[in-house]
Amino acid sequence: MSDSKINVTIWNEFIHEKEEASVKELYPKGIHGYLAEALASPDLDIRTATLDEPEHGLTQEVLDNTDVLLWWGHAAHDKVDDAIVRRVQQRVWDGMGLLVMHSAHMSKIFCALNGTSGKLHWREVGERERLWTVDPAHPIAAGVPEHFELPYEEMYGEPFMIAGDARLIFISWFEGGEVFRSGFTLQRGFGRIFYFRPGHEAFPTYYNENVQKVLANAVRWLKPVVDIPYPKTHMPESLEIISEKSFSFSKVGIIKPE
Amino acid sequence: MSDSKINVTIWNEFIHEKEEASVKELYPKGIHGYLAEALASPDLDIRTATLDEPEHGLTQEVLDNTDVLLWWGHAAHDKVDDAIVRRVQQRVWDGMGLLVMHSAHMSKIFCALNGTSGKLHWREVGERERLWTVDPAHPIAAGVPEHFELPYEEMYGEPFMIAGDARLIFISWFEGGEVFRSGFTLQRGFGRIFYFRPGHEAFPTYYNENVQKVLANAVRWLKPVVDIPYPKTHMPESLEIISEKSFSFSKVGIIKPE
Amino acid sequence: MSDSKINVTIWNEFIHEKEEASVKELYPKGIHGYLAEALASPDLDIRTATLDEPEHGLTQEVLDNTDVLLWWGHAAHDKVDDAIVRRVQQRVWDGMGLLVMHSAHMSKIFCALNGTSGKLHWREVGERERLWTVDPAHPIAAGVPEHFELPYEEMYGEPFMIAGDARLIFISWFEGGEVFRSGFTLQRGFGRIFYFRPGHEAFPTYYNENVQKVLANAVRWLKPVVDIPYPKTHMPESLEIISEKSFSFSKVGIIKPE
Amino acid sequence: MSDSKINVTIWNEFIHEKEEASVKELYPKGIHGYLAEALASPDLDIRTATLDEPEHGLTQEVLDNTDVLLWWGHAAHDKVDDAIVRRVQQRVWDGMGLLVMHSAHMSKIFCALNGTSGKLHWREVGERERLWTVDPAHPIAAGVPEHFELPYEEMYGEPFMIAGDARLIFISWFEGGEVFRSGFTLQRGFGRIFYFRPGHEAFPTYYNENVQKVLANAVRWLKPVVDIPYPKTHMPESLEIISEKSFSFSKVGIIKPE
Repeated sequence: MSDSKINVTIWNEFIHEKEEASVKELYPKGIHGYLAEALASPDLDIRTATLDEPEHGLTQEVLDNTDVLLWWGHAAHDKVDDAIVRRVQQRVWDGMGLLVMHSAHMSKIFCALNGTSGKLHWREVGERERLWTVDPAHPIAAGVPEHFELPYEEMYGEPFMIAGDARLIFISWFEGGEVFRSGFTLQRGFGRIFYFRPGHEAFPTYYNENVQKVLANAVRWLKPVVDIPYPKTHMPESLEIISEKSFSFSKVGIIKPE
Repeated sequence: MSDSKINVTIWNEFIHEKEEASVKELYPKGIHGYLAEALASPDLDIRTATLDEPEHGLTQEVLDNTDVLLWWGHAAHDKVDDAIVRRVQQRVWDGMGLLVMHSAHMSKIFCALNGTSGKLHWREVGERERLWTVDPAHPIAAGVPEHFELPYEEMYGEPFMIAGDARLIFISWFEGGEVFRSGFTLQRGFGRIFYFRPGHEAFPTYYNENVQKVLANAVRWLKPVVDIPYPKTHMPESLEIISEKSFSFSKVGIIKPE
Repeated sequence: MSDSKINVTIWNEFIHEKEEASVKELYPKGIHGYLAEALASPDLDIRTATLDEPEHGLTQEVLDNTDVLLWWGHAAHDKVDDAIVRRVQQRVWDGMGLLVMHSAHMSKIFCALNGTSGKLHWREVGERERLWTVDPAHPIAAGVPEHFELPYEEMYGEPFMIAGDARLIFISWFEGGEVFRSGFTLQRGFGRIFYFRPGHEAFPTYYNENVQKVLANAVRWLKPVVDIPYPKTHMPESLEIISEKSFSFSKVGIIKPE
Repeated sequence: MSDSKINVTIWNEFIHEKEEASVKELYPKGIHGYLAEALASPDLDIRTATLDEPEHGLTQEVLDNTDVLLWWGHAAHDKVDDAIVRRVQQRVWDGMGLLVMHSAHMSKIFCALNGTSGKLHWREVGERERLWTVDPAHPIAAGVPEHFELPYEEMYGEPFMIAGDARLIFISWFEGGEVFRSGFTLQRGFGRIFYFRPGHEAFPTYYNENVQKVLANAVRWLKPVVDIPYPKTHMPESLEIISEKSFSFSKVGIIKPE
């Protein structure tokens, strides 16, 4: 494992692929297994982790060696241990990139970082989705056309409860009449976050070349730029001379209002 | 209680005022008690709540009848029950305004809504703070001078771990050499949030007329504009005719990648 | 004219209504004339101004007495005098609200405040537009349904070249397959700005009750909150004692690099 | 000139260095000449341009071959030709990065892109400035300490009239009691913008290693990510079938309000 590679961990709850025959047929190795192969590249060192592994496969050691974490969850958000969620959140605050996929809009980790409920409208009839690239200059949109289509997808509709600093890259049009903010970035602490809507388990969305392009771009963009945990020294000495009126309040006692 | 009044609840952990003589002398009725009197106005219906009351004084009924909640906490963030935090968070998502005060930058409720750690640097020597109004056009800054001073305050220093959509109204200069984003707004769900830095328990900050002006303005600005919980119907019928290729995916089974 | 009223000026280039019979039939008094009647309300003092009046009807006196300016232009953006554009811009910087309507996305005043080209895609076939309210908690969305339709409109499509601080309230879905950020706010200096897409001259868009509701809400929200021109004194005395090493650089001459 | 290099053009009005002896002593080759040497690096292809060259040295050919433009101006903002300003603005919209330096906060190009007046307070007594890195995770802050000092600088004070999407990286503390948003990014069209405050001509600011580090980082970050001018086809065919009720409005005439 070379230091110059980006260490990627693809996390998947891995439930639908085991319980539903049609999903299993689509992703026999799981969504995580499929994406690990689809995103394979010499500059990436990719591993996977799933819900039923010890500590969901996200030990402190694994996270400490992860530059970018992909997260796919849907049926078992509440099965993810709160302690692991806090561990992932701390790693994002320290700089790890996080790619939140599709139904993970309601995952504990996304809500904890986003600060909202993550709610939206949805409809599962396999309708056409067209994604529009609203910020073609963003590195995540590099090589992605101005618009591209997914013939069958679940609909997600506005209003989508997300934080106000969502920087939009993609907006979706749905055949049934809805729109959705489908791709946007956030930053929390020192870590970058990218949410990407498409990816319902029952449709071959991850086989789509534009979807793969977006994910591949995102993994590179999410890589931490600098390695600087929040400084340990929280109580610094003053940098300037504080005037004689200053005092250690605990010794002097109450300062009467003037 | 008239419907046209703004229902305000001032929450305080109420610990320093009981345990430290100098703080008790400054705020004999507690910070919450002092602020309830200082902010009293015909258009406000103000009540208080504290940590050691049942459910911290924040029952569902109290919250349902609160338009704007003020939050002061410092020594006992971890004593606040997670269920109450979730209840407050849900009310903010539904539209309740939240005024986060001083050391509540590390409170569970602010971190849950903000999505970051809330970390910062600090120094407690009673130095001079000068607040600069960087957005004089904001309603919260109405009547507040371009800058004003607090002769004795705790220092909070950057980097301050806050979400990227913090809309700045005040930046502080400190005698010891630091700067700080001291006043800013956020929105989470349908609720508005305002964080205001000054307010250390050992200094007479809340007696300051400009500080009171900011708090008074903020309470009015934080009032919910509209009363609309997130719509109940999450699975809408399509508004447009979906073409014949559409299908109920669960009946049709796998869509083979093309 | 009572001081408690909001002074509104509706500006219109007023060309299509004179040159095209079908538009004239729709808006015989001009779009400005129609809107002046449709928005009439006891709390508003509404006047109109058009391109071919002296100074386009926007004398310094008119602007000084305008709280909120509505702007409709399309065919004659380049006919608007640069000096008038600067005058309007200065008033926005000083606090006047600006409502930019439909094809004014390419007006000189919007581009000057927005900082971008204002470009977009468009198609003029009279297709169905559906607006989605993505921030139902915003005052401009008060009383507006989660979505509403305009049966015949010109299409505007992404990517729309707007500034990054556009705070979204509405996103449009178009029958022909596009999406568009149709309603958003900006602030420049002390003035608030709202852009609202619908309003093509050939369709009866301004007759729509939801469109009127949005415009009516926007006029109230755009009203300046505070009346504070940027402070005149730009070279203040220092507020703190500057150490002995300080100097008047013009007397001392070069400071050699250390 | 290799394609893999970043093409940098450093523009300077080049007036103070010719008219004031002390400034000339500090920057005998001009600020542009000094920076061209200080920033020299194998991955950069640096040229300079000044106000008194034909077309200010910014011909269409020069701009077309510029990835990142640095801009220093102060005494002669009004001498910059409007046509050249529009040319530079168009290149930014098309993707060119722009580094706006110090007193260029009032340059025509910055105001045109920013959309505000660029006003601020200032004081020229050579006081101490301390910059705080408020977003240590930003690539422009890579290797820059949490804070660093400039012993002698001109003061710039808030409120600073800038657009709301200014993403803050640095905030300054001044010895005389002010604060300032000293480093932030914007995007306009496809181009990235970075404003950096320090750099008064009378002080050896550009000799400072941290200042040079910021500029060097910024040049790399400002490089266009993708090469995609705004699409030429502004009137696309519809991507979906538009229902029979649609029409060419110019043939059908007025659509009566329902």
